[in-house]
Amino acid sequence: MPVEIYRRGLLLVLSSPSGAGKSTLARRLLGADPDITMSVSVTTRAIRPGEIDGKDYYFIDQARFDKMRKQGELLESATVFGNGYGTPRKPVDDWLAAGKDVLFDIDWQGTQQIVDKLPNDLVRVFILPPSAEELRERLIRRAQDPMKVVAGRMAEASREISHYAEYDYVLINDDLERCLDELCTILTAERLKRHRRAGLSDFVNRLQDKL
Amino acid sequence: MPVEIYRRGLLLVLSSPSGAGKSTLARRLLGADPDITMSVSVTTRAIRPGEIDGKDYYFIDQARFDKMRKQGELLESATVFGNGYGTPRKPVDDWLAAGKDVLFDIDWQGTQQIVDKLPNDLVRVFILPPSAEELRERLIRRAQDPMKVVAGRMAEASREISHYAEYDYVLINDDLERCLDELCTILTAERLKRHRRAGLSDFVNRLQDKL
Repeated sequence: MPVEIYRRGLLLVLSSPSGAGKSTLARRLLGADPDITMSVSVTTRAIRPGEIDGKDYYFIDQARFDKMRKQGELLESATVFGNGYGTPRKPVDDWLAAGKDVLFDIDWQGTQQIVDKLPNDLVRVFILPPSAEELRERLIRRAQDPMKVVAGRMAEASREISHYAEYDYVLINDDLERCLDELCTILTAERLKRHRRAGLSDFVNRLQDKL
Repeated sequence: MPVEIYRRGLLLVLSSPSGAGKSTLARRLLGADPDITMSVSVTTRAIRPGEIDGKDYYFIDQARFDKMRKQGELLESATVFGNGYGTPRKPVDDWLAAGKDVLFDIDWQGTQQIVDKLPNDLVRVFILPPSAEELRERLIRRAQDPMKVVAGRMAEASREISHYAEYDYVLINDDLERCLDELCTILTAERLKRHRRAGLSDFVNRLQDKL
């Protein structure tokens, strides 16, 4: 009979330069593991065709956003091109307490904000592309952008990569299946960490009583 | 083409009360993974029939043992029933630098001594039995000891278990295959930790140069 031990959930943060395959990895991980869920952010930007409120984002107005930020209801937040983005704290707290993990697809600045708030629950994974050539190809293939935009993205990628050393794990996405496998392995191992297995103290107490 | 990144090895410490299946797990892990090797201790006790010098232990005299301890050549040491036991530091340092991992089968006191010396290289795993009844049965079955000796071992087990919270991971050995699987998963994940992957900084530098 397997012994079941209650564990507290964890926050899995994935960061990477755009073009390193992070979104594909996130989608595959969510599909493969029922105990991890994607965090849904709030945003003040307008909803786009095809987007679903409450799935892609919670679409809120600026006043609500400012209030949430002021009252500490956002785990992390940023303003990009004049639009506010943020992660509501309440659902994350509930998931963690229920022993579920939450996946975050955020950059190094968002990660930094969460470190300060939930340091023990955080597992930070940085994804690197296998080479600069590969990254360039992926950006060109994907966006069909003019070369000037691609050059800007490369510079942005370089800035994001310069923060890799702030992460617990660094994976190189030279093979999607292998990289996914490594990500799953990290998640499984992190779930076995003693400090997350909150039910252990009860288990050990019962064990000690009978010894 | 998979990208190869140099990593520094790690120290995997397994501790448990006797009877929790630690030795079997250690043997199975060593058989399953060519990149981890067992640390061989020195001891001052007499060699027993069937033991091999340099494999089971390095058998040394008390003067040599005292000198090694005094000169800081032992990573951890203890005296049990008047006999000295210790782990020579030099081979461990060499293995770590060569990117190989070293397995330690030591108790909480030995673990404590290593924490102070190589904190960043250490991964501590504690193995618990699934229940007190199971532990008692294993001790009786194994040792065919008089019940008085078994009672003493149970008390000793209880003392060892009281240190479980000093470990990074705690596994419950309710199923040997599952427990081995969890141990392998932990080892694989720990090898992916950013701070062990010493070759990453070169890799990122080369990447950044071309972006």
